[in-house]
Amino acid sequence: MTASTSVPTPSVPAPDIVRCAYLDLVVTDLKKSRDFYVDLLGLHVTYEDDEAIYLRSFEEFIHHNLVLRKGPIAAAAAFAFRVRTPEDVDKGEAYFKELGCRTERRKEGFVRGIGDAVRVEDPLGFPYEFFYEVEHVERLHMRYDLYSAGELVRLDHFNQVTPDVPRGRVYLEGLGFRVSEDIKDSEGTTYAAWLHRKETVHDTALTGGDGPRLHHIAFSTHEKHNIIQICDKMGALRMSDRIERGPGRHGVSNAFYLYILDPDGHRVEIYTQDYYTGDPDNPTITWDVHDNQRRDWWGNPVVPSWYTEASLVLDLDGNPQEVIKREDKSELAVTIGADGFSYTRAGDESGSYHGEASKGFKLGSQV
Amino acid sequence: MTASTSVPTPSVPAPDIVRCAYLDLVVTDLKKSRDFYVDLLGLHVTYEDDEAIYLRSFEEFIHHNLVLRKGPIAAAAAFAFRVRTPEDVDKGEAYFKELGCRTERRKEGFVRGIGDAVRVEDPLGFPYEFFYEVEHVERLHMRYDLYSAGELVRLDHFNQVTPDVPRGRVYLEGLGFRVSEDIKDSEGTTYAAWLHRKETVHDTALTGGDGPRLHHIAFSTHEKHNIIQICDKMGALRMSDRIERGPGRHGVSNAFYLYILDPDGHRVEIYTQDYYTGDPDNPTITWDVHDNQRRDWWGNPVVPSWYTEASLVLDLDGNPQEVIKREDKSELAVTIGADGFSYTRAGDESGSYHGEASKGFKLGSQV
Amino acid sequence: MTASTSVPTPSVPAPDIVRCAYLDLVVTDLKKSRDFYVDLLGLHVTYEDDEAIYLRSFEEFIHHNLVLRKGPIAAAAAFAFRVRTPEDVDKGEAYFKELGCRTERRKEGFVRGIGDAVRVEDPLGFPYEFFYEVEHVERLHMRYDLYSAGELVRLDHFNQVTPDVPRGRVYLEGLGFRVSEDIKDSEGTTYAAWLHRKETVHDTALTGGDGPRLHHIAFSTHEKHNIIQICDKMGALRMSDRIERGPGRHGVSNAFYLYILDPDGHRVEIYTQDYYTGDPDNPTITWDVHDNQRRDWWGNPVVPSWYTEASLVLDLDGNPQEVIKREDKSELAVTIGADGFSYTRAGDESGSYHGEASKGFKLGSQV
Amino acid sequence: MTASTSVPTPSVPAPDIVRCAYLDLVVTDLKKSRDFYVDLLGLHVTYEDDEAIYLRSFEEFIHHNLVLRKGPIAAAAAFAFRVRTPEDVDKGEAYFKELGCRTERRKEGFVRGIGDAVRVEDPLGFPYEFFYEVEHVERLHMRYDLYSAGELVRLDHFNQVTPDVPRGRVYLEGLGFRVSEDIKDSEGTTYAAWLHRKETVHDTALTGGDGPRLHHIAFSTHEKHNIIQICDKMGALRMSDRIERGPGRHGVSNAFYLYILDPDGHRVEIYTQDYYTGDPDNPTITWDVHDNQRRDWWGNPVVPSWYTEASLVLDLDGNPQEVIKREDKSELAVTIGADGFSYTRAGDESGSYHGEASKGFKLGSQV
Repeated sequence: MTASTSVPTPSVPAPDIVRCAYLDLVVTDLKKSRDFYVDLLGLHVTYEDDEAIYLRSFEEFIHHNLVLRKGPIAAAAAFAFRVRTPEDVDKGEAYFKELGCRTERRKEGFVRGIGDAVRVEDPLGFPYEFFYEVEHVERLHMRYDLYSAGELVRLDHFNQVTPDVPRGRVYLEGLGFRVSEDIKDSEGTTYAAWLHRKETVHDTALTGGDGPRLHHIAFSTHEKHNIIQICDKMGALRMSDRIERGPGRHGVSNAFYLYILDPDGHRVEIYTQDYYTGDPDNPTITWDVHDNQRRDWWGNPVVPSWYTEASLVLDLDGNPQEVIKREDKSELAVTIGADGFSYTRAGDESGSYHGEASKGFKLGSQV
Repeated sequence: MTASTSVPTPSVPAPDIVRCAYLDLVVTDLKKSRDFYVDLLGLHVTYEDDEAIYLRSFEEFIHHNLVLRKGPIAAAAAFAFRVRTPEDVDKGEAYFKELGCRTERRKEGFVRGIGDAVRVEDPLGFPYEFFYEVEHVERLHMRYDLYSAGELVRLDHFNQVTPDVPRGRVYLEGLGFRVSEDIKDSEGTTYAAWLHRKETVHDTALTGGDGPRLHHIAFSTHEKHNIIQICDKMGALRMSDRIERGPGRHGVSNAFYLYILDPDGHRVEIYTQDYYTGDPDNPTITWDVHDNQRRDWWGNPVVPSWYTEASLVLDLDGNPQEVIKREDKSELAVTIGADGFSYTRAGDESGSYHGEASKGFKLGSQV
Repeated sequence: MTASTSVPTPSVPAPDIVRCAYLDLVVTDLKKSRDFYVDLLGLHVTYEDDEAIYLRSFEEFIHHNLVLRKGPIAAAAAFAFRVRTPEDVDKGEAYFKELGCRTERRKEGFVRGIGDAVRVEDPLGFPYEFFYEVEHVERLHMRYDLYSAGELVRLDHFNQVTPDVPRGRVYLEGLGFRVSEDIKDSEGTTYAAWLHRKETVHDTALTGGDGPRLHHIAFSTHEKHNIIQICDKMGALRMSDRIERGPGRHGVSNAFYLYILDPDGHRVEIYTQDYYTGDPDNPTITWDVHDNQRRDWWGNPVVPSWYTEASLVLDLDGNPQEVIKREDKSELAVTIGADGFSYTRAGDESGSYHGEASKGFKLGSQV
Repeated sequence: MTASTSVPTPSVPAPDIVRCAYLDLVVTDLKKSRDFYVDLLGLHVTYEDDEAIYLRSFEEFIHHNLVLRKGPIAAAAAFAFRVRTPEDVDKGEAYFKELGCRTERRKEGFVRGIGDAVRVEDPLGFPYEFFYEVEHVERLHMRYDLYSAGELVRLDHFNQVTPDVPRGRVYLEGLGFRVSEDIKDSEGTTYAAWLHRKETVHDTALTGGDGPRLHHIAFSTHEKHNIIQICDKMGALRMSDRIERGPGRHGVSNAFYLYILDPDGHRVEIYTQDYYTGDPDNPTITWDVHDNQRRDWWGNPVVPSWYTEASLVLDLDGNPQEVIKREDKSELAVTIGADGFSYTRAGDESGSYHGEASKGFKLGSQV
């Protein structure tokens, strides 16, 4: 289980991680999840049976970017990263063993399409997987006959909720990730950090909060109108209540974004047009937590649920990891004062909720 | 002054209105307004001096679509419509005279670029102008060397706040407008109506509220990304607090939209991609006021200010028209109950405000 | 049959035409045409049986914009225009009778979804239809669940080939059309003219050439990327040989365009973003035939087939109209000299063809 | 000077190249080039004086991506690549010394903004530069107040003309580049190859032809409409004769593209939306030279000049490298037969040119 001590740097080398590659996700109703990921979002089915559906994005050539696995509790079973060589799987195993983490070697066939792999319960309590061997499938990147108006073309990143972001950051930097952007306050509290291996803003990010939990998985589109189409389609399907936040322009990452919720409440981001980060001295951008444009460049408020809701993660036995409460100030809390607003749910005075307020909720004099 | 009796249909024919053509707008600081409309939004200056700036959109061939006129009180001085022939100006004068409205003939030069015109204080209290004669200027529609990333290509419509929407609707239908869409409840209250002469969803709309007031003026762009660029640019200029609502997809009109506020608080909509309404039997679409997708197809809540704030309008002497309170239920009020939320401004318990709530503000159990 | 004398103006009033509404098109293989218009282009089927398929665009509320009718000879059976009132059908009949044209009243059911109508063989030899009564069907304009990446949202216009453009122009102006743009040379020859009733650049256009023939039917998309997607999809389906010309930006009309060929060689334009023409004094734009940007703003050459190939049209008995040769200089011919190029098909010296040359075909010195 | 023997693999390690970083380009009229790259294309000036202009793209944080340097002969003076560490500059020097190439160490200040660097005359005759040290400047990636409608956001790649593509490919693979795509025929002739270090389709490509010459430099945009805007703007500026090819969709790379010519005839590609290639086993795509969609997915023909015209490159003394004739079949030549067309320039029978023909130039029967 996650301990609050700092994560030491192992003496053995870290595995050479290439990129985030797939998420192994437990869903409670496979049919409903298929409706969401295949019929609504248009992900492409590599394989499916009664127990699981293997999905990939338009430009992907490995077997899948997302596994939907039927199970009793909605949760993330594994955050899987591709490594550069078969030996990096061994390196990953040794690295986490030295960290004192539980590890399990998973042989070919444990997850369809994936060869030799190692799964670990990492120091933050997340189930990470590292693999090199993978089945190649048809890259659909020129199959415009299959291209939907809201086509998801790549897996972009994961986002993880953890109570102690600085601790997680040090751990991930040790593992070879580099920080592209972060959110801090003047007292040194870190609220969130974005970390990458591939040459984009992130392969994963750490969001401060009760964790370990999965905040979201993100797919990218070619252009902004593709994201708008997903919203429009959800409107047409009368699913607007599953649009949680956005669309908008992020401050952090500069990407155009949308957050939607799958039938189990797993959060999916649709994302496009961040920037190249591949240079060794790519400048890290630090945002002030009080900057109202940090999370939405247009100043649209973050809905409280986005800060508070997240998905459970599983340990290597498939049981939910215990969720540890964040002790540091929450980003949600510190951004109330700045705006001077709170929200109250009608008919529930005792449970009034305090969130970030919209710039739009001004109460100026009327004519 | 606006009286609450129904507006009779004159015996003389209505003028043949072609389209909404320009807004005569009083601003209190011409320099600041120029920064907003020219530097930020990229409208093209046809003429300017110390007293006024005449602006047009990219595809316009008449002298202007917007006059910014320096004055002591921010307000709309005229909603100007183009009519089909010079004789229609006479018809307009006769029509409003029979309605008992104050009218004034304005000769060429009263407004630069505009010839013979008639201004009226209409039955709802709005200053309407009808003109045919107008100076032609260079249509910039292929001047892509001047085309900005957020280019405004046409004036699309006006939107007016009036306490009694059904009364206003009957009056405007008498004047030749046709209703494309409206919002009602099951008890027959009409909250808003969209009316057109040109073959789009509207040349003007009526929004229920304290009035007569100008709700907004709307310009259209070619594509959705042009609107997103305006948001991005306002973010870059640290003007996100002037983005009031959106961007989003309207239910009513099906257009992609954004509402921003000029330095005086005049509201400007940026709008694109509604539909053709030119057939004589174009179907009118009625939305239920309780449909959470009526004003935003994605279910994003309307900020209360959008319902309550608006600009004064002037009488023909240049004095503000008295604002009459709406007696019918407000759309803002009736949409609280449906969602079960209210908002409270922190530290101002007595002045708590009740508005439409975000679908995002769910308070479900956390892990 | 078309006579080369000028078309007189009838004493009776012209029908009040609202817009081009549908094309009745004979195809030789209904299955192949369905593949093209439904599977490739995504038009929506209102009704189909073994003899005909009735298709409409995304935003349409009348029964159809295109009828695909099985027949022995690929040809256009009718260019149908909607008129403002039922009486305008009678006016249309009287108007063309006075012109000495053959007319036939077609009752409800002759064309599915269309009520009382009149079909005429017009002075140029084209089969025109005028109707008011029409079945309303679901307007799909917010059915984003059906929205394809290359969605066709409206019927925009027809384009007709006729040997004597000035004669055709006078006739259509008499019928109430107004010219938005034309192409001329300094000696007064008119090569093409664009004419509208609805408030866009055209409902139909006249292209100089051997006629009467159908040059193309045009559908519009919301944005430019929708047109690019159609190209990409045709590439994916290995149908690139059916992309005849474009995509590009027109000089005339300022629209973004693409021309593709259906299985019978009927030409379809995909078109987006022309401009508003609804004002009574909308300025007519005249282009010089020698302006290399008139037909493609980027100077890409028009392929010769675009000038020479077109579809037959039928008389009211369903027989092909005789094609009359253009006597005036062809646009294709006059634009050779300007560019100084000709094309020769290898192995066919006798049949060498002279066309407009690409700016790209420069033969400058190599290093 | 380029010798036609194969390039051996040095015993010392290759430098770790990060990406193509900037092109040092000699232009003959600095003012005209500024008009092109700054006023037309909107690149951002980091520094300029009477001798040179240093330009960068919207998302760049290093000093420049393009140097325009005044000189007597239009040519490319250096293709500069960034390496991962300062030591990689030394490695680069050693690597090329072992290859028997001329190398010169260039100290900070030789090129403004660039620190210690090595320039080499590589085995193909190209002037390559490797550097690590570079001045950081403001990354403009969120400066949407500066964002033009055709904004160039990144340097994407170079493209080099060389007579012996397989030889060049082996050399570049030795240097650490990996091949993403290539064009071959069934007899084994390689016509072109695309090679990358960063995780896109290429940092440079080899085009078969007389060389060494610079084929083009490519900048990327965010979306396809940005490229269309550049065409539209060139049309508005009556520069359509400087649009050489496109816009179109590449087969190879799957990117949307445009080729334009600067005042000296240097070719610039505008490019967007290729795919991720960062995985170690990223599949290489081989295209058949006879596939008419390989270079344009829509089958639009490549204009001959695109194959034959290119820019000189300089040796380390600033003198033009001798151009060696390609002995293998040219792609231009082999694609004539397939299409069965040739082009003849009118009035120049002796100099008739044979190129790839347009699918549009069909000479089928006319009605």
